[in-house]
Amino acid sequence: MADVAREAGVSVATAGRALGDYGRVGDDLRDRVKAAADRLGYSPNVVARSMRSGGTHSIGFVGADISNPFFATALRGVCDVAREHGYEAILTNSDDRLDVERAAVQVLLDKQVEGIVVAPTSVTDVDHLKRAQEVGVPIVLLDRSSSALDADSVVIDNEMAAHDAVTYLLNLGHRRIGMLACVDVEESPEVVARAGTGRLQARGAARPSIDRIRGYLAAMDDYLAPSSADLVRCTGLGSPAQAEREADALLALAQPPTAVFAADNVATQGVFRAARRRGLAIPGDLSMVGFDDLDWTTLVDPPLTVVAQPPLDMGRTAAEQLFARIKGEDRPGERIVLPTELIVRSSAAGHGAQKRSA
Amino acid sequence: MADVAREAGVSVATAGRALGDYGRVGDDLRDRVKAAADRLGYSPNVVARSMRSGGTHSIGFVGADISNPFFATALRGVCDVAREHGYEAILTNSDDRLDVERAAVQVLLDKQVEGIVVAPTSVTDVDHLKRAQEVGVPIVLLDRSSSALDADSVVIDNEMAAHDAVTYLLNLGHRRIGMLACVDVEESPEVVARAGTGRLQARGAARPSIDRIRGYLAAMDDYLAPSSADLVRCTGLGSPAQAEREADALLALAQPPTAVFAADNVATQGVFRAARRRGLAIPGDLSMVGFDDLDWTTLVDPPLTVVAQPPLDMGRTAAEQLFARIKGEDRPGERIVLPTELIVRSSAAGHGAQKRSA
Repeated sequence: MADVAREAGVSVATAGRALGDYGRVGDDLRDRVKAAADRLGYSPNVVARSMRSGGTHSIGFVGADISNPFFATALRGVCDVAREHGYEAILTNSDDRLDVERAAVQVLLDKQVEGIVVAPTSVTDVDHLKRAQEVGVPIVLLDRSSSALDADSVVIDNEMAAHDAVTYLLNLGHRRIGMLACVDVEESPEVVARAGTGRLQARGAARPSIDRIRGYLAAMDDYLAPSSADLVRCTGLGSPAQAEREADALLALAQPPTAVFAADNVATQGVFRAARRRGLAIPGDLSMVGFDDLDWTTLVDPPLTVVAQPPLDMGRTAAEQLFARIKGEDRPGERIVLPTELIVRSSAAGHGAQKRSA
Repeated sequence: MADVAREAGVSVATAGRALGDYGRVGDDLRDRVKAAADRLGYSPNVVARSMRSGGTHSIGFVGADISNPFFATALRGVCDVAREHGYEAILTNSDDRLDVERAAVQVLLDKQVEGIVVAPTSVTDVDHLKRAQEVGVPIVLLDRSSSALDADSVVIDNEMAAHDAVTYLLNLGHRRIGMLACVDVEESPEVVARAGTGRLQARGAARPSIDRIRGYLAAMDDYLAPSSADLVRCTGLGSPAQAEREADALLALAQPPTAVFAADNVATQGVFRAARRRGLAIPGDLSMVGFDDLDWTTLVDPPLTVVAQPPLDMGRTAAEQLFARIKGEDRPGERIVLPTELIVRSSAAGHGAQKRSA
């Protein structure tokens, strides 16, 4: 701003008034200052805004995998709210790796963002997030919450969402129900299933999928259905090819499931492709409930019954919480649970009716 | 770094060696310095890297619409290459609006990125990009190139890609071929078609869709097929509902097309949905060629014939060009054209064969 004032031959205060479009300043003077700012490559908006507040008027978003439509849509919600507040949002990708997330948060702090929305890789290794809070940069967690961090979080009830989806299949008469989850752990799929979820939580695995496995197991228990280890298969994050292989292994069991719950959008695609490759009619030979209400789930035949979470609202809500903190609101962290919805379409049929309708 | 050295009780040079993992320094000393850095909240990587180069080791990406899978995938390519170079990539969204893009570029300059990959909204209003170059921040254009800016660009040959797709339909015997394009202009669809593409270019519209319309018109001319104004419909960027309405209007013509070329992934979805809603079998009643090889185009029945562009390679190549500039390469801007491919699946049939196969 001092440079602009010098270039225009006016005082810094006058330059500020001219560029900020506030206070009294003649048209000639305003034009002169704007021309000077233009020559020097200053954006009047940014300059004026930082003059008013002293902040950088930017917030950061750390997403696990931006090519996953869930995060892309959540990011859009964050960006929209940021713009409504006159802020810019900048994004970094964590690839769901803790070391990359740490570096990403550090980059955002270096860039002096005023707050960060983060989908955390771990809910226990959060020292880097605490440090951000300590230097006055508020954190809001998206998609996962952490008891190790006093911060707002915006999540869905993953356990209940899975419980509802599996209960829907149980009510249709299915008892041998498979599940395909995206869990990036070293344990083999069998161990994940056998151990239940206790050990995974202890290791700090933050995956909503862990809660979804818990919801599946609880629903199966409710109906005294056998939830054997071979019925739960896991696949790495974001790998459609691996998801299809794991889904195929599920369908290749000596006693294959009559229905499958796919616990995220990549798993949903994997189950759909594997069923088709094996020539299984949906829902004639296999019922399925997927996760995430993406466009393609209504483009395919049959349209899929899915658990819909609200990624746009989640992103918007996380950003709104963040701005409340940036504006100085000070209270203990709050866990905001947004509702999910089971959207019933045509990919699941009654167990008895299946073979007949096929 | 000075703070870390003071906290650890060592010289700045020693602290630099310890954190950068270069030069000789005892294990004890290294641990002490790392512990000090940890207490102060310094990331050794970032500190060490800036010591080595003096730069911020970050690059920026400005995408038109990050919830479009094309840009999400291109961004992944940019991020991957950035990481290979030890850089972080940060992203801002332009919503394909020039004012938003200007602000986004300014934010990235404020954040002192060392270079920017941008999918420009306009190919004529590029002063903000020139200013970035003038302050030493190289620019690489993605998806669109500009004669008004001396910068590298990474594009596909949109005109040829469209020409090939429409020629494929013409060779199948179709003559009444419709086109659905995403063009965000004020002109009504009829005017776009009647005026050809000259006026749009003059207004600085940078849409690859303009070149795709040109390719469509050229192919139709090659075969002396009537490319009447009512056969080309346009829809706004990124609106699936509007795309479906425009596609429906195309199919509702008194003389409807026997084949449609959908010129981007949103238009492709619109044509597919509109055909299904009207009960038209693909390809029995309507042949179609879509754009972008997205997952869903092989999940639907029939799998769609599409023009595939390589967004991951485009992002990677743009980032590699940028790093060559960051490392000091100085030569006139280069236009890199990556190949597209017509992937023939099952959504188009011979014109004569259509009704019989239906």
